[in-house]
Amino acid sequence: MNRARIGRVLTLMQEENLPQIIVSSPTSIFYLTGKWIAPGERMLALLVRDDGTVLLFANRLFALNGNVDVPLIEFDDTDDCVAVLARDVRPGRVGIDKDWPSQFTIRLMEAREDVRPVLGSGPVDRARMCKDAEEIDKMRASSLLNDRVLERLMGELREGMTELEGAERYLAIAKELGATGPSFEPLICFGANCAEPHHASDDTRLRKGDAIICDVGLVLDDYCSDMTRTLFLGEPTDEMKKVYELVRAANEAGRAAVRPGVPMKEFDKAARSVIEAAGYGEYFIHRTGHSIGLEVHEKPDNSATDETIAQVGMTFSVEPGIYLPGKFGVRVEDLITVTENGGETLNQLGRQMRVI
Amino acid sequence: MNRARIGRVLTLMQEENLPQIIVSSPTSIFYLTGKWIAPGERMLALLVRDDGTVLLFANRLFALNGNVDVPLIEFDDTDDCVAVLARDVRPGRVGIDKDWPSQFTIRLMEAREDVRPVLGSGPVDRARMCKDAEEIDKMRASSLLNDRVLERLMGELREGMTELEGAERYLAIAKELGATGPSFEPLICFGANCAEPHHASDDTRLRKGDAIICDVGLVLDDYCSDMTRTLFLGEPTDEMKKVYELVRAANEAGRAAVRPGVPMKEFDKAARSVIEAAGYGEYFIHRTGHSIGLEVHEKPDNSATDETIAQVGMTFSVEPGIYLPGKFGVRVEDLITVTENGGETLNQLGRQMRVI
Repeated sequence: MNRARIGRVLTLMQEENLPQIIVSSPTSIFYLTGKWIAPGERMLALLVRDDGTVLLFANRLFALNGNVDVPLIEFDDTDDCVAVLARDVRPGRVGIDKDWPSQFTIRLMEAREDVRPVLGSGPVDRARMCKDAEEIDKMRASSLLNDRVLERLMGELREGMTELEGAERYLAIAKELGATGPSFEPLICFGANCAEPHHASDDTRLRKGDAIICDVGLVLDDYCSDMTRTLFLGEPTDEMKKVYELVRAANEAGRAAVRPGVPMKEFDKAARSVIEAAGYGEYFIHRTGHSIGLEVHEKPDNSATDETIAQVGMTFSVEPGIYLPGKFGVRVEDLITVTENGGETLNQLGRQMRVI
Repeated sequence: MNRARIGRVLTLMQEENLPQIIVSSPTSIFYLTGKWIAPGERMLALLVRDDGTVLLFANRLFALNGNVDVPLIEFDDTDDCVAVLARDVRPGRVGIDKDWPSQFTIRLMEAREDVRPVLGSGPVDRARMCKDAEEIDKMRASSLLNDRVLERLMGELREGMTELEGAERYLAIAKELGATGPSFEPLICFGANCAEPHHASDDTRLRKGDAIICDVGLVLDDYCSDMTRTLFLGEPTDEMKKVYELVRAANEAGRAAVRPGVPMKEFDKAARSVIEAAGYGEYFIHRTGHSIGLEVHEKPDNSATDETIAQVGMTFSVEPGIYLPGKFGVRVEDLITVTENGGETLNQLGRQMRVI
């Protein structure tokens, strides 16, 4: 059990007027207890009360007894698991994890008419937003490994190769270099496919004159990385060069703006205005980035509408792009973590234009 | 929209005293509307009311307008999606899909204090239990393709090959022969690993004298298959032969018992008693099977405690096994669908003992 993290959650519960919460996300339970548990369709719940009580409710099949340092209350498949949990819930408001299957919330209400379920993911989600030193070390290591894998992959790209072959090579190199696995399906795009930000890699072959987008991430020591580099097979056109340098400048501006105490939307604005000023604003069709940590997409967004005030430890992507339909696209993405004085970019792989 | 299936759901809603239900499982929505929609973290809900009203609530990003023949109510990311849904929910009981994320149920309660959420997956889950003719045709085709893939895989097994290589070959052959994908990670086990029913394939190599369990399934035309065959590399011991014939007889007894109108537990008993009578009861450590269809594990179970009365169209596995720790294990699994007169086995691949 990570008492410092539990302490932060208790403070945030007080702020949100939540006297007790039920945490069910396996990722959040790992964050607080250090133990990954995959419950499948069975109930798993960590009850945290404002008197400091922390209780883990788990099926005996998960074999946690002796394997977890949180007070454990076990039940069997033949028990009414919600009734077991209900005994330790106090009357009044109880914060419920946003993704807990409704069957458990409904059964809890039926077992305990004096309990009122309200949305209760805030305290843990907000604690997870600000990575602590141990987490940032792991995020840094994950991104540095991702740099090494992508560097090798870029050296292997050849005319005639398919996007899917590129994606498979990323997976193989990541595995060879020690990653637990990918943090999302690697996205390797060639030519006009680069103009679709959510294109899924397919059998398209790499041809001379193509732009190449590699948007890849891996998991190392439980933490996710995520980065994008765009390169070119054969001499790029003048338009490609211009767009590339613009996106690279937007990425730099977005990262340079990062500092604690200002709303996230300022970082989006810093990156976006570079592209808008050059007349390409309508071709930058997505948010500038997203938070990342134990999960590849966390809150808050790095977007034009996110008012969250940046705090030390928040870690997110800066990934501006320009997408010219039917022609090509460019995206340059790095992860950055907010520090006392500004931001620390976690990726070290160069951003100069690369032609192969 | 499949009006016959909606009609069955309406009948079951009446039986369960549910005047309205909210269906959120993408699989159940596909079953009723013919449309697969992957909502991610966004809200997706099919409201079915006992006056026959069917309304699909979906984010405009899902691009369903003109692509689905169900009355559609769309919303944007900036809308309060639950408020949009709440306008069409009537006062009183509303059945909620068991897995709908709690955030939606809680927000619905907050928007509509006159609405009482109760568990409401029953009508659709019970309709899906009994496959109709179109579904059984697809289940049969999926199982026959699985037979062909496994037949080819068994022909390729060689001494020195690893379990993971076997699993990868299953995936490749299934893809080559036209499967959409696997219905679960293929489980190829060698030697003592066969004694662990939930062993995950690893780098263990196939050696002379090993038992080999192949537990594999694929998806074809949206429907899942699932089968197991056990074979041997090199002449099996007398104990292996005895155990194999016992499991094969239990599989046959389990399938022969299938008919409508009796509780599921009778089929488990028929298979289990063959193994118990021979003194191996303590080594048959799991239920005899599970239902299957659009999902690889559905309800009811084919187990000693399931009292569900078998009905025509119910489709499930019969998969007895004997597991001798540290030595070997045998499992023989087929899918069977309940017919007017008994059961139709969907797998055709032979069950005679096979030595390679």
